Amino acid sequence: MARSMRVIRSARQMAGAARRWERQGWRIGVVPTMGALHEGHASLIRRAAAENDVTIVTIFVNPLQFGPGEDFRRYPRTLRRDLALARACGADVVFAPAVRDLYPPGFHTRVELGALAERWEGKLRPGHFGGVATVVAILFQLTRPTRAYVGRKDYQQACIIRRLVRDLAFPLAVRVLPTVRERGGLAMSSRNAYLSPAERVRALVLSRSLAAAAARIRAGERRGASVASALRRAMRRAPGVRVDYAAAVDAATLEPLALLRGRVALLVAARVGRTRLIDNLLVDVP
Amino acid sequence: MARSMRVIRSARQMAGAARRWERQGWRIGVVPTMGALHEGHASLIRRAAAENDVTIVTIFVNPLQFGPGEDFRRYPRTLRRDLALARACGADVVFAPAVRDLYPPGFHTRVELGALAERWEGKLRPGHFGGVATVVAILFQLTRPTRAYVGRKDYQQACIIRRLVRDLAFPLAVRVLPTVRERGGLAMSSRNAYLSPAERVRALVLSRSLAAAAARIRAGERRGASVASALRRAMRRAPGVRVDYAAAVDAATLEPLALLRGRVALLVAARVGRTRLIDNLLVDVP
Repeated sequence: MARSMRVIRSARQMAGAARRWERQGWRIGVVPTMGALHEGHASLIRRAAAENDVTIVTIFVNPLQFGPGEDFRRYPRTLRRDLALARACGADVVFAPAVRDLYPPGFHTRVELGALAERWEGKLRPGHFGGVATVVAILFQLTRPTRAYVGRKDYQQACIIRRLVRDLAFPLAVRVLPTVRERGGLAMSSRNAYLSPAERVRALVLSRSLAAAAARIRAGERRGASVASALRRAMRRAPGVRVDYAAAVDAATLEPLALLRGRVALLVAARVGRTRLIDNLLVDVP
Repeated sequence: MARSMRVIRSARQMAGAARRWERQGWRIGVVPTMGALHEGHASLIRRAAAENDVTIVTIFVNPLQFGPGEDFRRYPRTLRRDLALARACGADVVFAPAVRDLYPPGFHTRVELGALAERWEGKLRPGHFGGVATVVAILFQLTRPTRAYVGRKDYQQACIIRRLVRDLAFPLAVRVLPTVRERGGLAMSSRNAYLSPAERVRALVLSRSLAAAAARIRAGERRGASVASALRRAMRRAPGVRVDYAAAVDAATLEPLALLRGRVALLVAARVGRTRLIDNLLVDVP
């Protein structure tokens, strides 16, 4: 495509354009986001632009995936900066629909996942992954991706999108790219914008505790419960950090592992001040 | 297409073929069925064949839409006859996948609809419409319809498929075709095969009661409750018929109407012996 970037607001227009590209046999790369783009998103967009004929970044702060009392209203909205970043990274289209365009009056459908959505984030945020799966299904219908790009930072979400794509037979590949970190190790997240400078320092405990737990496994620890409780203890030691969960799980099923083996995902979630952060690390146990 | 009909068993093959046709710009007509095809299905297939470049009949007895204690195991399976009928009506492809091909191990996703799925059939058959919506979403992904054809006999199901298509932004039109009836008025249904000759006579009470209720409306009755209770009474008078529900509802929302106006759907469900039957009639109130 030409190096001018197009902003599409209407779902109908998006669907029409994507179907034309699909019919021409173009490979369509799609990066679904809620905006407030950062270097993590940038890495996804660059990869999409390198691998496809047309790259679509969707920007939609999805009300369905926020619970009551969560930060839907104050979630950062930075469209002008987002457009500049998307363009600089090689996006051809930004699709930024209005809520009532994706969810018109009478909208009723929900896409739900089972066990995979009930643990960890799903347990603490009831309805969250149903909201994610529903909007992703709609966005994929409208944008017709050949490949979709998501970040590993939201590890459970990435697993759920993979499952959804497989179960509902979407003809596309899901690419899960590594977490991008700030200097010091803090995982990039749009919600980092909420952190005060002091909280930003405290928040380092997530990535550091994960790294320490991974080192413990590499040093020979194989008891899942022991790794998980060391992870929890390490995070609790930081002042002003409340741990939601810390776990060592099977990277595919997200079930806690008694004995660590195969690909292990270390998952953590904690609140730093008013801000809820998540992070994870994959460790291959020989 | 040539007048030879192809039977596809594999979901992967079906998806590959449909995507090729889609890319060529062919109009794809899809008739989703559970097999045991009858004249009602035949009318759908003929219409699909007349309006599209390629016509796919799907045959899949979907375990997800049967509750415990329902007739999944004894549901009539008549593949050889079905293939002959589909071919005679102009189908180009019959897609008849195995259960484990649509729902492989680890399958987790459910498509759920809200209020529309909770009334009437949904109330008596919990989980039924979730099962319908899930399989229809998968079948539409695999077959890529330009148009899908469903019968009005399953009126609530047709509403749900329309809603699903709109909400999840499937790029296709849903055509709902009139109920085909046997001589005497019994609505064609694969489950009619369960009826004994005596039950078949008793079952006529459904369509006759509907016709009487419609006549009552045309004669000026506008009270929904009065029409519904007359409908219920008329069916109860027949021996060996147990009424599940009888209602006069808004044809779009399926909500019961106190005052009949606009397009009204008269809905009935009853058990005749061991067999559960449903029927409906649309009446336009001036």
